[in-house]
Amino acid sequence: MTGSVGIVSTRHAEFDVELPLESGRMLGPLTLAYETYGTLNAERSNTVWVAHAWTGDAHAAGRHSPEDRKVGWWDDMIGPGRILDTDRYFVVCANVIGSCYGSTGPTSINPRTGKPYNLSFPVIMVRDMVRAQQLLRERLGIERVLTVIGGSMGAMQALEWGLHYPEHTASIIPIAGTGRPSPMAIALNALARQAIFNDPMWKKGNYRPEHPPADGLALARAVGHISFLSDTSMNLKFGRRFSVRDGVFDFFGQFEVERYLEYNGRNFVDRFDTNSFLYLAKALDLYDVAWGFDGLEDVLSRLTCPSLWFAFTSDWLYPPYQTEELVGILRRLERPVEYHLVDSDYGHDSFLVEPDKFTHKISEFLGRMAANG
Amino acid sequence: MTGSVGIVSTRHAEFDVELPLESGRMLGPLTLAYETYGTLNAERSNTVWVAHAWTGDAHAAGRHSPEDRKVGWWDDMIGPGRILDTDRYFVVCANVIGSCYGSTGPTSINPRTGKPYNLSFPVIMVRDMVRAQQLLRERLGIERVLTVIGGSMGAMQALEWGLHYPEHTASIIPIAGTGRPSPMAIALNALARQAIFNDPMWKKGNYRPEHPPADGLALARAVGHISFLSDTSMNLKFGRRFSVRDGVFDFFGQFEVERYLEYNGRNFVDRFDTNSFLYLAKALDLYDVAWGFDGLEDVLSRLTCPSLWFAFTSDWLYPPYQTEELVGILRRLERPVEYHLVDSDYGHDSFLVEPDKFTHKISEFLGRMAANG
Repeated sequence: MTGSVGIVSTRHAEFDVELPLESGRMLGPLTLAYETYGTLNAERSNTVWVAHAWTGDAHAAGRHSPEDRKVGWWDDMIGPGRILDTDRYFVVCANVIGSCYGSTGPTSINPRTGKPYNLSFPVIMVRDMVRAQQLLRERLGIERVLTVIGGSMGAMQALEWGLHYPEHTASIIPIAGTGRPSPMAIALNALARQAIFNDPMWKKGNYRPEHPPADGLALARAVGHISFLSDTSMNLKFGRRFSVRDGVFDFFGQFEVERYLEYNGRNFVDRFDTNSFLYLAKALDLYDVAWGFDGLEDVLSRLTCPSLWFAFTSDWLYPPYQTEELVGILRRLERPVEYHLVDSDYGHDSFLVEPDKFTHKISEFLGRMAANG
Repeated sequence: MTGSVGIVSTRHAEFDVELPLESGRMLGPLTLAYETYGTLNAERSNTVWVAHAWTGDAHAAGRHSPEDRKVGWWDDMIGPGRILDTDRYFVVCANVIGSCYGSTGPTSINPRTGKPYNLSFPVIMVRDMVRAQQLLRERLGIERVLTVIGGSMGAMQALEWGLHYPEHTASIIPIAGTGRPSPMAIALNALARQAIFNDPMWKKGNYRPEHPPADGLALARAVGHISFLSDTSMNLKFGRRFSVRDGVFDFFGQFEVERYLEYNGRNFVDRFDTNSFLYLAKALDLYDVAWGFDGLEDVLSRLTCPSLWFAFTSDWLYPPYQTEELVGILRRLERPVEYHLVDSDYGHDSFLVEPDKFTHKISEFLGRMAANG
């Protein structure tokens, strides 16, 4: 029998620090929003750190109230008897800095001015997100996590943990990740940025929260949405069906795929902050695992813990060859590395859409890690 | 020795007609802008009809004046001794209706109101473009063209000629085409549309020509631009290089690919009309070779002339499988069909970027057609 973690709540850890960032700037004081599921064992050796993707949050599993209609974003993975088994593991998920779900980000109050940061928030890198997470790990009294697991931007974070905090990281599981996004991925984010910059409501980031640049953000989200899907998945889901409401010869008539993208873009405006979206897009674009090192070999030689990697055949945002480049180097370095190319039609989103295709490999891997620890 | 067609000029043919459109609406009177190169032979049997793509025009070859810095869009293909050899063939290229380069489109004056059509212009299909071209073919005294050749939207036109004007079409050469764009292609055009609709300068199509929705159109063009390229070609051209002018940690700093897309988008605003862009995007999305027929087999059974097809391995806008679906059916129908999958890294644009990889097949095919004719 597998089950839900039940009713959970997001907690907020406050840190009275000045965190040094890759840019040379400092960020502080810091708040990190996080949730935990399961119990830290006596040896403090059973932590599974879950890292979320671009627009994710700390709420990975369960519900916030019995009336809550939606469960956490990775609920099917986390709970008693599930892949990340909360009867065995202590699961932690923290909202990244730069986001808008409780951790310090552009919507937070800048203590120096008493006003929201907006564009005075510093440009951050994924490495900064992970640096901030070390504060929470220490606060929770965890010397060493059993694994760090995440998809997309979460995969980048997992990799940064393994590379830069080897003494605190027993293994990593990067899913649908990349060592550095291609110019194609950057170009798509450039479209999203420009969509927002073009919106007069954006006001260089100084919009009022109740009057966000909704048109721009909705369009930006639609750009992202397309990049998470695939030609095949869109064919399966929408085909070329025309929206029933309009005639084919109506200038404003929409295909179903078009209406869907617009609808989802509009919904996104209600749940995400525009400046956070831009700062995290920037962090994704800037992500380069070899940042500050002499290339991939140099940096990857620091990865000594076991790693389990997944890529998805139809992922054109971070295509499999990008994961395979990293895995190939780790193999040449004779590091303990396991890689699975998953045959899936759902593009970059496959890791969320078709977990059954690959997550049993995670159970096995985690079981081995726990036995070795 | 191969050479240029030299100095050419665009002519305008006026037709005092009411053209019935697929939508049931009528369009007229009509103007078609066109250019011709070479000489129609005595038998009137040597016409090569060139069909242009989305943002193309009638100016396919040569220069408009000795000072003209740019040659026509397919100049390397057209001229004495070139693939479309003007010593042998009479080459015609007409600007499609709906465009903004001299043929009747949304910027034209609506004779019923004395004002530009703008959004009162009817939604047109590719079939309507080809129907209008028959008026020009007749005006030029051509009973039967030797071939119709074109890439992308030009491939769609070639196919429509072959299917619906079999008595006037001896062969067709569709390049980088599709029988119907996928929802992915439609979704990309949906982004482009929304980028324009979001621009307050668009004013539901009633912008003044001197104040176009420049931000929206530039962004729309950038969307299209990405879809014409490929992951590989962008890697070759830009990699992850950051624009030298900005620091990595500048919020408004740009990668080179980003700056390039913006620069090209801005240039596009000076050369293309926004409403034309939207009407032609709609025509592309609505394109379905089986429109009005009982599926692909039914419509393709009408194609009796020889056809020569090309698709490009890295084309993710109209991927090879879409051409191969049509070719497969034609082969089952035992039609004279020749297909080449061209290995190229340049995406949808490969047909313009790497002509040397495939155009010799066109010479051979045309030579055979001319000998048989």
